[in-house]
Amino acid sequence: MNPFDDNYFMKKALQEAEMAFDKGEVPVGAVVVIDNKIIAKSHNLTETLNDVTAHAEMQAITAAANYLGGKYLIDCTLYVTLEPCQMCAGALYWSQISKIVYGAKDEKRGFETLGTTLHPKTKIIGGVMENEAATLMKRFFIEKRNLN
Amino acid sequence: MNPFDDNYFMKKALQEAEMAFDKGEVPVGAVVVIDNKIIAKSHNLTETLNDVTAHAEMQAITAAANYLGGKYLIDCTLYVTLEPCQMCAGALYWSQISKIVYGAKDEKRGFETLGTTLHPKTKIIGGVMENEAATLMKRFFIEKRNLN
Repeated sequence: MNPFDDNYFMKKALQEAEMAFDKGEVPVGAVVVIDNKIIAKSHNLTETLNDVTAHAEMQAITAAANYLGGKYLIDCTLYVTLEPCQMCAGALYWSQISKIVYGAKDEKRGFETLGTTLHPKTKIIGGVMENEAATLMKRFFIEKRNLN
Repeated sequence: MNPFDDNYFMKKALQEAEMAFDKGEVPVGAVVVIDNKIIAKSHNLTETLNDVTAHAEMQAITAAANYLGGKYLIDCTLYVTLEPCQMCAGALYWSQISKIVYGAKDEKRGFETLGTTLHPKTKIIGGVMENEAATLMKRFFIEKRNLN
């Protein structure tokens, strides 16, 4: 049995999403993996940094490239708790990343709904631990509504 | 006569593009303007930073939000020498920027060709000083080819 399956790494991304939640950020987390090794971890920081570009995926791409010493994420897999948006999918296109594994679907703003073009080399798997990711998102928006 | 027209600010963006050119970067430059005042200037730094997310527009969005102290670029105009890609258009969507003015068209990877969704509030003008921007791009790729 391989302990390093998609669920294993998605759990790590979910831990990042929980860190975002605790900061009052929309709870999205991401990790980048190469050869079963996590080389980047991040969570959404758009509110903290006052920056719409500070999505978990964007930070993960930058951090992974920094670790690798090159801008292309060949042989890397991104695990992210929510389907990436157009911006993040556009960045993933440029990165030529090998695989994207996401949790919950974003029916409204996800790249699959909006038709963003990915690199032809990139494989996509959706729905990994989607209930956990979707539940965290729902809990965030319910709590936010109750606070306002 | 208003000296602060689209050509005036596009010239500033072209100056940024030339700075990218001099660093061996694909020559794209950008400025963000509010009330005829430039609040952010940037140029492509993907090679220098080893980071596919370091497009001129992404840096300009982050810098402008930092200047404004808020993440939304309401009443701002982005001037950029090349039609934004999917990633940058996706970031501009989140920023709710009021206006995008671009120079040369990117027939292959531009957001208009690829169908990226912008914010409904965002106006788009293309082709401002497009010859200057396109000439700079062509010169870059010719020189690059001759060096290899």
